[in-house]
Amino acid sequence: MKLGIIGLGLIGGSLGLALRSRSHYVIGISRHEETCALAIQKGIVDEASVDFSVLSAVEVIFICTPIGAIIPTVEQLKPILSPDTILTDVGSVKAPIVEAMTPLWSNFIGGHPMAGTAQQGIEAAQLDLFTGTKYVLTPTENTPVEAQKTLTAIVQDLGTELITCSPETHDQTVAWISHLPVFVSSSLIASCVQETDREVVTLAQKLASSGFRDTSRVGGGNPELGVMMAKSNQKAVLRSLRIYRQQLDKMIHAIEEEDWEQVERMLGETREARSLFTTKK
Amino acid sequence: MKLGIIGLGLIGGSLGLALRSRSHYVIGISRHEETCALAIQKGIVDEASVDFSVLSAVEVIFICTPIGAIIPTVEQLKPILSPDTILTDVGSVKAPIVEAMTPLWSNFIGGHPMAGTAQQGIEAAQLDLFTGTKYVLTPTENTPVEAQKTLTAIVQDLGTELITCSPETHDQTVAWISHLPVFVSSSLIASCVQETDREVVTLAQKLASSGFRDTSRVGGGNPELGVMMAKSNQKAVLRSLRIYRQQLDKMIHAIEEEDWEQVERMLGETREARSLFTTKK
Repeated sequence: MKLGIIGLGLIGGSLGLALRSRSHYVIGISRHEETCALAIQKGIVDEASVDFSVLSAVEVIFICTPIGAIIPTVEQLKPILSPDTILTDVGSVKAPIVEAMTPLWSNFIGGHPMAGTAQQGIEAAQLDLFTGTKYVLTPTENTPVEAQKTLTAIVQDLGTELITCSPETHDQTVAWISHLPVFVSSSLIASCVQETDREVVTLAQKLASSGFRDTSRVGGGNPELGVMMAKSNQKAVLRSLRIYRQQLDKMIHAIEEEDWEQVERMLGETREARSLFTTKK
Repeated sequence: MKLGIIGLGLIGGSLGLALRSRSHYVIGISRHEETCALAIQKGIVDEASVDFSVLSAVEVIFICTPIGAIIPTVEQLKPILSPDTILTDVGSVKAPIVEAMTPLWSNFIGGHPMAGTAQQGIEAAQLDLFTGTKYVLTPTENTPVEAQKTLTAIVQDLGTELITCSPETHDQTVAWISHLPVFVSSSLIASCVQETDREVVTLAQKLASSGFRDTSRVGGGNPELGVMMAKSNQKAVLRSLRIYRQQLDKMIHAIEEEDWEQVERMLGETREARSLFTTKK
């Protein structure tokens, strides 16, 4: 098939490599001429341009821009495309995007490939980034059946495990497993910073080891990414944060009351429960 | 030197291997005959017994029992020892132990080797468990200078970095870097368990990846260990938990108010701060 990719960063670039390796013809779009040249040079795309008009005849377009640019991109793109072009995005939040897209472009399915690396940008693009990962599609009752079928086939052909759910289910799920951990972890670091005893601070920095390192890792990540999560998934993130605070309060209360049986029961339950989230990898 | 080790688990067993490799003569004590036999067989000790009387002539004794058994052990041991025997422990909390030991045995220094593995017990003992790790000693104004000098030499000879601080500084430090993360992480799992939408729960278990896995790791650990932290370090743990809750509330408030600049500032500060806790490894 003839496919388009808008935004040639880590995800767009890796998609290009993977799709071309499956014999698709890939046209890439970047805002920067140098990125276009690099994408061709690295074999990520067959052609590349800064101009949307090259996409007029493609069958499916993957919009791989940052979340905030998805809707403006489609508004710009709209006059160029034939109505049977299928659009999809790779944003990590789905409900607001699907909602804004519905009046704009009917032949659209929200998507979220659950893949990534610590590196960003076209230089980090990898042929096998998606192999063995999960790829979420969030069709609604308005999604054309043919569009869903076509996209499903392309995505599964990349060696991904396809998961289909509603945009709302997706967003509450990522609030729990991806967004809440960021704010929980960030608050851990923020609280240590409040320590006023300089000797304790110095010693803590010296003695912190794997437990602290792991628990604080995602809280030490890219602040723009964290803001994007809170902003675009505000409702679900706040719901998770409030339930989290209740559980934290329950633990604080048990320790205050010296109810050690209760503390042990709670920790026993979380040990059990954690295995459900970590054994299917 | 002639040294004693009471409790031949991971720490006691590894100490035995390391001390013998430095030409010390090591006598081990376990409650179980089989552990004594195994310790001799594995070269962890030169002799082993279930009877404290074999320790009457040693110069230094490492008490490597669980925290709750340290004081009862010393009470039993006291009639056997000459007053110049140096006692030390390896408990992960120091102030309550040092306080209880002071009237019992003057020739005592609290210790905490910052080493461990996921495995427990004598079978997990390793010769080089302490190499390159930090070893905290918590002398007080009552600690005999000679005792501190002797223990310092033994511990440094194992290839550890010696750190000296007050018992209180130690306990507040481990509350931040070791105990708080457990309760923060456990509450993350506990909150996910509260989700009532079965589809979200199933999907969350399916999609949870490295971010969730790392942030929840120490909360999925041994419940008895968590209770020990809360119980034996209650004051410092509660202080850290309350400061943590304040920081969490500040984050929740900023997201509620849609104060994205504030969210970005807070996440930016924690990214900066985290590097201070993780670069010195």
